Amino acid sequence: MPSRSQAIEYYHANQNNALEALKQLVAIPSVSTDPAHKTDIHNAAKWLAQRLTNIGMEHVTVYETAGHPIVYGDWLKASGAPTLLIYGHYDVQPPEPLELWKSDPFTAEQRGDCLYARGASDMKGQVMASITAVEAALKQGSLPVNVKFVIEGEEEVGSPHLAAFLDQNDQLLKCDVCLNPDAGMVAENVPTIVYALRGLAYFELKVIGPERDVHSGLFGGVVPNPANILCELIAGMHDSQGHITLPGFYDRVQALDKAERQALAKLPITDEDYLRQTGAKGLVGEAGYTAIERVGARPTLDVNGMISGFTGKGSKTIIPSWAMAKISMRLVPFQKPAEVHQQLVRYCEEHAPKSITWEVNLLSSGPACIADRNHPAAQALARALETTWNVAPVYKREGGSVPIVADMQRILNAPSVLTGFGLPDDAIHGPNERLHLPTWYRGIEALIHFLYNYAEKP
Amino acid sequence: MPSRSQAIEYYHANQNNALEALKQLVAIPSVSTDPAHKTDIHNAAKWLAQRLTNIGMEHVTVYETAGHPIVYGDWLKASGAPTLLIYGHYDVQPPEPLELWKSDPFTAEQRGDCLYARGASDMKGQVMASITAVEAALKQGSLPVNVKFVIEGEEEVGSPHLAAFLDQNDQLLKCDVCLNPDAGMVAENVPTIVYALRGLAYFELKVIGPERDVHSGLFGGVVPNPANILCELIAGMHDSQGHITLPGFYDRVQALDKAERQALAKLPITDEDYLRQTGAKGLVGEAGYTAIERVGARPTLDVNGMISGFTGKGSKTIIPSWAMAKISMRLVPFQKPAEVHQQLVRYCEEHAPKSITWEVNLLSSGPACIADRNHPAAQALARALETTWNVAPVYKREGGSVPIVADMQRILNAPSVLTGFGLPDDAIHGPNERLHLPTWYRGIEALIHFLYNYAEKP
Repeated sequence: MPSRSQAIEYYHANQNNALEALKQLVAIPSVSTDPAHKTDIHNAAKWLAQRLTNIGMEHVTVYETAGHPIVYGDWLKASGAPTLLIYGHYDVQPPEPLELWKSDPFTAEQRGDCLYARGASDMKGQVMASITAVEAALKQGSLPVNVKFVIEGEEEVGSPHLAAFLDQNDQLLKCDVCLNPDAGMVAENVPTIVYALRGLAYFELKVIGPERDVHSGLFGGVVPNPANILCELIAGMHDSQGHITLPGFYDRVQALDKAERQALAKLPITDEDYLRQTGAKGLVGEAGYTAIERVGARPTLDVNGMISGFTGKGSKTIIPSWAMAKISMRLVPFQKPAEVHQQLVRYCEEHAPKSITWEVNLLSSGPACIADRNHPAAQALARALETTWNVAPVYKREGGSVPIVADMQRILNAPSVLTGFGLPDDAIHGPNERLHLPTWYRGIEALIHFLYNYAEKP
Repeated sequence: MPSRSQAIEYYHANQNNALEALKQLVAIPSVSTDPAHKTDIHNAAKWLAQRLTNIGMEHVTVYETAGHPIVYGDWLKASGAPTLLIYGHYDVQPPEPLELWKSDPFTAEQRGDCLYARGASDMKGQVMASITAVEAALKQGSLPVNVKFVIEGEEEVGSPHLAAFLDQNDQLLKCDVCLNPDAGMVAENVPTIVYALRGLAYFELKVIGPERDVHSGLFGGVVPNPANILCELIAGMHDSQGHITLPGFYDRVQALDKAERQALAKLPITDEDYLRQTGAKGLVGEAGYTAIERVGARPTLDVNGMISGFTGKGSKTIIPSWAMAKISMRLVPFQKPAEVHQQLVRYCEEHAPKSITWEVNLLSSGPACIADRNHPAAQALARALETTWNVAPVYKREGGSVPIVADMQRILNAPSVLTGFGLPDDAIHGPNERLHLPTWYRGIEALIHFLYNYAEKP
């Protein structure tokens, strides 16, 4: 009997054990944003280190950082086999508003098919799925691939110390690929692989007109109005087809090939889903692309906020002195944030009238990430998901940005394959967060298959 | 010896009397916006009623209103002569910040050629100039024209009860023309007649996209961004020549005739003045018009304020749920605010995408006002100013809006001629408000001439 079957058998026999462990982990209120939970954060890290030790991982260490600690453990005896780094985070969002929870957020309660607790889905459940899969294989004496766990405690506050940790430990963390199970499934029974994330370039654009607010009667018609001019600049950033007009903006953007467009078209996400999720009256976007392509595979430019002049109740007849907009672009491979910055500056140089002054400040940025869908790990994961669900996974480009994935690529030179077993209605970050247990159990089984698949030559 | 010369002689002999009276009036801290000064407001009204009685005005009455009282007095024995209504206000702006005053704001202090006190220029000085001119004529036994004084106490808070007073007393206040000495001179030794004021139509335009702020990564590219769309709507309200594009916006706007353009061109106001007064880097505006024409004789559209989404420090990656702008138009004769409201609604109907909802709310409005520069009162005033200053007055269209003037036109069917003897550097509304006494003395003399001129058939 091959190890794979034995591992799956072992897991099935000990499923309840995994669930009990998850219940213990979610009981630790490791809220990363709240200093009052500092002890809980450390307790969660210690609990995970103990768990990794118990299942047979080696070199288990709780690394202190300038922020919350990072838990590391590896098993590197699969000589000749590839090395997999499994990423996870043990911190969670605050549970507030508490009055909306039907059960205590830090006491797991099973109701129907779901386990309710803060972090059950995002992502203590996913961390425990990974550990349980590795445990099942290790119980057979060895792992089919080399495995390194990196489990941080600051994902919900933007992972401010992870990149430094990767930098300082780049030899320790050397790997062929990262598995990041912090993505979710697009629907129940639709196993999902996320292979691309958009990047980000986030700016503040300020336009300055008169040196102070001036009377719109006495000066209206001659003095440049920075709010009107800011609107004109922003309006000009898209053409009538929804394309972005910054000079050179699309130069590095790759066209989608036919196969990828066909794959994206198979995703069970409809325009109605976007409308329902946002309450918008209609969809918009770049001509020539489907909604899914626009969100995942095309760059976008959005105003995130703007302010100028008088915004209180009633009327105040001024020409404001200045106007400011937060403007961000979601980037796709292989756009470079620094170049986009220059493109925005160039656009302003070309279009801003001489009667005003303006300034562009870059607030944050990160490049887009893409993994080859034919990467051996991606293929191994796809086969594992198909074996478990009896249906081929869908491939998704995520519209958001995950700086961790970019960091892994940049510092460790390792692509990330993203998956996960959370569902869209898990209410992550909200009250009554839950984990759909039948899906979670399948996920663990799929991860066991993945470990063995990845060791095989395809 | 004709009455005119005797009146002027009387005035010269009693000039000090006028100054002492002004000092008494400015000593009453009649700050209309502050309830703590309610008694002072009433004292100022009583003081004026007494003064009008003392100089020989009749039917002197302090009319109570829902707000601060209005002082009335008339002299109507110039049978066959026209009736002049002289408008004034006895309330003043708050004096704060007190620490910036070099002398007590309510103790008039003469330094050099100027009298320093709150209200010295705006407009207790102008009220006293009018009363002193009428006094000088009355001392000769009769006035050459019929005169009615209406002196309110709420101009600095928007004259909320004046229109109702005019409405309720339209027979009492019947007149041929209003003299409003609340305008100023464009420069020393440049007597000024303001014959037109712009109107106003002030709106709030709100654009609503998703039902709440949504993630700009997950939804950027498909969900309508209300901030971007608001910018597009606002940008589209002007064409590349600076013309306003609301449908029908210029239909009622009168072209400027050559004579008027020549007269406006003579105003000693340069582009550099606008730049210096506002600190703007350059001027803008509608093609084909000078700065003075743009400010006074052409309608404008300005954003007075706008807000949307995240405007704090740093970056928040959202597509905002809504965006709002305060947008106001300065109107010229014979645009109608209600029609402009419809034009803005129509513009939004034609240009707003179907993916969002929008709403337009009218916050305040008033029509533009224009007086015929050939009106007998305007001509009489022009001759009076020229006699006094030995230079013809300049004719100015004011860019701002004075609702009182529109009310006089609408309710009393009387045009207003605006003048005044304040100077641009009088610091009205600011600390160390002052009145340039040599100019004020000349102003009184000019008003005496005006009374006699207006009685003459030109």
